[in-house]
Amino acid sequence: MPRLAVLCSAAVLVAPLNAEGPFRNRDNPDLHDEAEGTYPVPYHLPKPEEITAVLERIHANLDRAMATKVVNAKTGAEITDLTTFNADAVASQGERNGFHVMTYATGVTHAGMLAAADATGDARYRDFVARHVEFLGRTIPYFRAQAEQIGAKNSSYRRLFDTNSLDDSGSMCAALIKARFAGIGPDLRPEIKHWADYIRFKEIRIADGTVARHRPQPESLWADDAYMCIPALAQMGRLTGDRAWFDEAAKQAVQIARHLFNPTVGLYMHGRHLNQPLTAEFRWGRANGWVILAQCELLDVLPQDHPLRPEILATYRRHVQALAELQSGAGLWHQLLDKPDSYLESSCTAMFVYAIAHGINRGWISPVTYGSVAQAGWLGLAQQVNAQGQIEGSCVGTTLASDHVYYYNRPTSAHHGHAYGPVLMAGAEMLRLYRNQGKLFDIKLQFRTYHFVPKKS
Amino acid sequence: MPRLAVLCSAAVLVAPLNAEGPFRNRDNPDLHDEAEGTYPVPYHLPKPEEITAVLERIHANLDRAMATKVVNAKTGAEITDLTTFNADAVASQGERNGFHVMTYATGVTHAGMLAAADATGDARYRDFVARHVEFLGRTIPYFRAQAEQIGAKNSSYRRLFDTNSLDDSGSMCAALIKARFAGIGPDLRPEIKHWADYIRFKEIRIADGTVARHRPQPESLWADDAYMCIPALAQMGRLTGDRAWFDEAAKQAVQIARHLFNPTVGLYMHGRHLNQPLTAEFRWGRANGWVILAQCELLDVLPQDHPLRPEILATYRRHVQALAELQSGAGLWHQLLDKPDSYLESSCTAMFVYAIAHGINRGWISPVTYGSVAQAGWLGLAQQVNAQGQIEGSCVGTTLASDHVYYYNRPTSAHHGHAYGPVLMAGAEMLRLYRNQGKLFDIKLQFRTYHFVPKKS
Amino acid sequence: MPRLAVLCSAAVLVAPLNAEGPFRNRDNPDLHDEAEGTYPVPYHLPKPEEITAVLERIHANLDRAMATKVVNAKTGAEITDLTTFNADAVASQGERNGFHVMTYATGVTHAGMLAAADATGDARYRDFVARHVEFLGRTIPYFRAQAEQIGAKNSSYRRLFDTNSLDDSGSMCAALIKARFAGIGPDLRPEIKHWADYIRFKEIRIADGTVARHRPQPESLWADDAYMCIPALAQMGRLTGDRAWFDEAAKQAVQIARHLFNPTVGLYMHGRHLNQPLTAEFRWGRANGWVILAQCELLDVLPQDHPLRPEILATYRRHVQALAELQSGAGLWHQLLDKPDSYLESSCTAMFVYAIAHGINRGWISPVTYGSVAQAGWLGLAQQVNAQGQIEGSCVGTTLASDHVYYYNRPTSAHHGHAYGPVLMAGAEMLRLYRNQGKLFDIKLQFRTYHFVPKKS
Repeated sequence: MPRLAVLCSAAVLVAPLNAEGPFRNRDNPDLHDEAEGTYPVPYHLPKPEEITAVLERIHANLDRAMATKVVNAKTGAEITDLTTFNADAVASQGERNGFHVMTYATGVTHAGMLAAADATGDARYRDFVARHVEFLGRTIPYFRAQAEQIGAKNSSYRRLFDTNSLDDSGSMCAALIKARFAGIGPDLRPEIKHWADYIRFKEIRIADGTVARHRPQPESLWADDAYMCIPALAQMGRLTGDRAWFDEAAKQAVQIARHLFNPTVGLYMHGRHLNQPLTAEFRWGRANGWVILAQCELLDVLPQDHPLRPEILATYRRHVQALAELQSGAGLWHQLLDKPDSYLESSCTAMFVYAIAHGINRGWISPVTYGSVAQAGWLGLAQQVNAQGQIEGSCVGTTLASDHVYYYNRPTSAHHGHAYGPVLMAGAEMLRLYRNQGKLFDIKLQFRTYHFVPKKS
Repeated sequence: MPRLAVLCSAAVLVAPLNAEGPFRNRDNPDLHDEAEGTYPVPYHLPKPEEITAVLERIHANLDRAMATKVVNAKTGAEITDLTTFNADAVASQGERNGFHVMTYATGVTHAGMLAAADATGDARYRDFVARHVEFLGRTIPYFRAQAEQIGAKNSSYRRLFDTNSLDDSGSMCAALIKARFAGIGPDLRPEIKHWADYIRFKEIRIADGTVARHRPQPESLWADDAYMCIPALAQMGRLTGDRAWFDEAAKQAVQIARHLFNPTVGLYMHGRHLNQPLTAEFRWGRANGWVILAQCELLDVLPQDHPLRPEILATYRRHVQALAELQSGAGLWHQLLDKPDSYLESSCTAMFVYAIAHGINRGWISPVTYGSVAQAGWLGLAQQVNAQGQIEGSCVGTTLASDHVYYYNRPTSAHHGHAYGPVLMAGAEMLRLYRNQGKLFDIKLQFRTYHFVPKKS
Repeated sequence: MPRLAVLCSAAVLVAPLNAEGPFRNRDNPDLHDEAEGTYPVPYHLPKPEEITAVLERIHANLDRAMATKVVNAKTGAEITDLTTFNADAVASQGERNGFHVMTYATGVTHAGMLAAADATGDARYRDFVARHVEFLGRTIPYFRAQAEQIGAKNSSYRRLFDTNSLDDSGSMCAALIKARFAGIGPDLRPEIKHWADYIRFKEIRIADGTVARHRPQPESLWADDAYMCIPALAQMGRLTGDRAWFDEAAKQAVQIARHLFNPTVGLYMHGRHLNQPLTAEFRWGRANGWVILAQCELLDVLPQDHPLRPEILATYRRHVQALAELQSGAGLWHQLLDKPDSYLESSCTAMFVYAIAHGINRGWISPVTYGSVAQAGWLGLAQQVNAQGQIEGSCVGTTLASDHVYYYNRPTSAHHGHAYGPVLMAGAEMLRLYRNQGKLFDIKLQFRTYHFVPKKS
């Protein structure tokens, strides 16, 4: 009697590459304790040096994979003479074309490197950013001149010379402002201003002012766009002191949530289209990650007395609550957050670990419950970083789609950039979290699990 | 340390019979595209001729399996002399006793054949119905005479001569009216009237007038009964022009939803019992299919100004929204719609594909999102039709039960009729959907998925 | 292209130890019935003697495993002279240290033995309790004298001499009162009063009077505590006739639900902490079991006119409704009730089977739906009792934790006591349920499943 298999589930029930599990909690010295089981990921109190080691492996991998050089697109040969026009000159795409120097994923990577630099004091992370910013400063004039001949659309730096989306602009813009505050690299203020003005004044908006795209439908709202505009707008407020930037950033945060956040479920849909009144919601992990990352970036710099701050904070808290309830038994979150038979996904997990740990460190949420959730998430995530510093299990670039078959079956790749910045941010924030031990909270190991107990204030 | 396995899940994690997957999207010419994964079912834009081929295989199988002949129940020998009384004469049960000429499943099969005839213009589908209606017309007098001798209860046509349930009447009644409108076969108006009067005047009703059964409890409401009465009532409105039929059909649609639809979840429970105030809800796939099929049949013919039309349409839309969110990663829906560890079920999938595609074609719902959902559903469903035109993965006849162990473990069989009509309807409606390309919407292949973009009206 | 496996799921997809399935329903005599599938657990009408046989196996195992003897903690040698001080004398921990004579699990075991005695009339269950109570009566003076020398904290009967939690007191206290009503054993009224006074007057309470613990957070509310206080308080009301005990029991039942029950979901969270306003909810099976067991115990003895009775009953009914919808396809419930990829857990299943069958027997809920649910649950549960009378698949002692990685991966053990009392209670209550056949309801086998049809009252 034939019966259809649950095909999609079967596909993911393979052994993970990195696992050497099952794992027994090393913090329990009693090897005969029958009440101590095993775990699919190592469940224990991570040591700071273990977190640092993960960050260092990632840095080493990216330092190798993300080239800062000009090459001939046809031959691949490096071009060092940046005074002579060459129609074929391009900035290297990096390893397997996954790591170009000017993409939104690279913007997040820089944010991650700056966070790692700050949390560790290790010069390598800062040097990585410096090498990139220096390269941009050195090559922008060269490619600008080239673009005048071959057309901006054909340039390797099209995102800068022919900016036409938030993907082109927001993430790199925010990263360059952060680098500037860190005193890194040449002054790219003109490029920062160009991108910021694009976001604030030129990007498509629907009638109520929320940023939108003309794809896939005429007026499509993407949760991803929260990250692609809010951090840059917020950083511009910080850079210029002009409150109008904060107002616009906060407005976007609030309106994106009103359009895309389902308060009953506690999750964002990936997106919706104004030409469809009653939409179905596809709760893609990384889209939820982009929003919560953007909220953190905004709350970090938004004035305490901003009138929209309470609403942003309330949405963030409801989101964290739902995420804690949807975390898998391996610490990671699912590609479709509310679908336990969808695969475990690294990039969204990294974003959630960061956002939760950051919220505890900032005092936005309680360490009770959420400290354990962040820790369990990190422990699962760390298993996804292999010995070469590659991050596995991360969903490749994914468009705003309209059916589960697409989302369930997106491939993963360690050769796409999306997870790298978020894992760096997550690790850096976890280091800060454990430094708050004894200040914000104590961590008790009791009955084989970890309790984050707030210090009395 | 023993731990119980998730037994029911394990049972379905076997390879499907028809799969040759995983499948790569043939519409993506770049074989080295790392952002193009593989799928458990073929994910691509189906070609009309591929849909037609599926319909033709099903027709060929049914044409063989569904006999229209009188046989001796004891010997199996064909009886051709329909002038002589024979106590053992019966209408053939068809292949493996799964395809009798007068069951509710056969009524749906006729509806599917008529839809396929209409969508393809292929005479074979019409001929199939004609053969059956002609056979009924020819044999009803013979069996009626026999019944006078052996008792109506013992007749092969008991459902007609001793009608005592909606299962006996509604589906065949609706199919015969549709055949009549298509100008097929002899005039079976007396039989149509008999069944329609049974539904409207004789079927059990609870105090508020909703149709009910005396099983398994004294007053049990079954979602299945939506299909077993509404299409026949609606077709009678169309046939007679008497608005009272529409009123009764609409009343049943609205009241069944009020009793059985959970608007928070967006699904119907299989049924409930008036002797139990607070029931648990078991969200069986096919029961939800019967309701949405019935709603489509009603909305097709219900006057635009009928006062209950908006409520029926609103419930249909909320249902579609929930279904889109519960579609599996293989395009099919689950036996228990909200249980991802229950098996993927063909008959309900076919009903949903039909109902969603039909709603787009009629303008009841937007092609945005729902076009992709219908397409993904069809692609998964088509894999369930094997080379012999048999439909696999379809749950056998299932009663209104009260525990998940029953529902989770219902067997599937290609030798029961429930999925055949729905798959024919689904395929026919998908053909219409793609014919609306360029009229109602365009289909864009962008970033490895399909976007149904409405034409500006 | 590496992709992370669903690790936690993979871990439980192993064959169960006891299964000899798949099973075909023995009540269906037609071996060729294609509409009769197979089941992962035997699905049929259980016979009373089969239920009794399960209870007897459990009794035999416990009678062996739960020692009533004083031993030397260092040498393990039995100590029979209870007149001479011995600093090393302890009550035996029983087999593999899992079955001490004075723990909350043992209290439940006694409740289960008393229920089995009552339902079967078999003296063995009563004798088991008598042996224990006699042992306590005989050894309490001995250990009390010892404790004066070595300190109450170091005594084998610390829970009695240095009571400092509900775990120490409530379950044993309730069991001893029940034994007393059954006329079993020596008069332990002083011990009963000591524990009852601890619960009512000394246990930690938050500002609104709800019982709490100082762990893991300063004011933590545990759902488990419903069982650890309510049955004892309720039994004290019965024992003393003083309504104040009932008032306190009812108050705890209502307030624990207000704090921990999510009426939208219909489940209890394991616990919450007053120092965290917006908590995430972890819906651990056994915690839900403790509450519903406590509610049954209270409703059994609470005066019919008690003003809080309707609220307690309403919450119980909503809980049962949600549980019926979350039962797995194998009859058991999941370790995390709303997580279908968490393992199937025996102890919570036993508690739910008991509570649902008991509610039907008492008339609190309808046999319609819930009769089938209880039966299916029992059939799954009975498979977990192996030939040696050990109960497999029961989660070991589990603290109030803050992440899913902990809960998903708790080990199971037949050598911990938690499931034994509940399975005895469940079996005893199922015997009563089937005795109500023909009185409260009839059971119809129709279309391959079981319908509990209430008798007209």
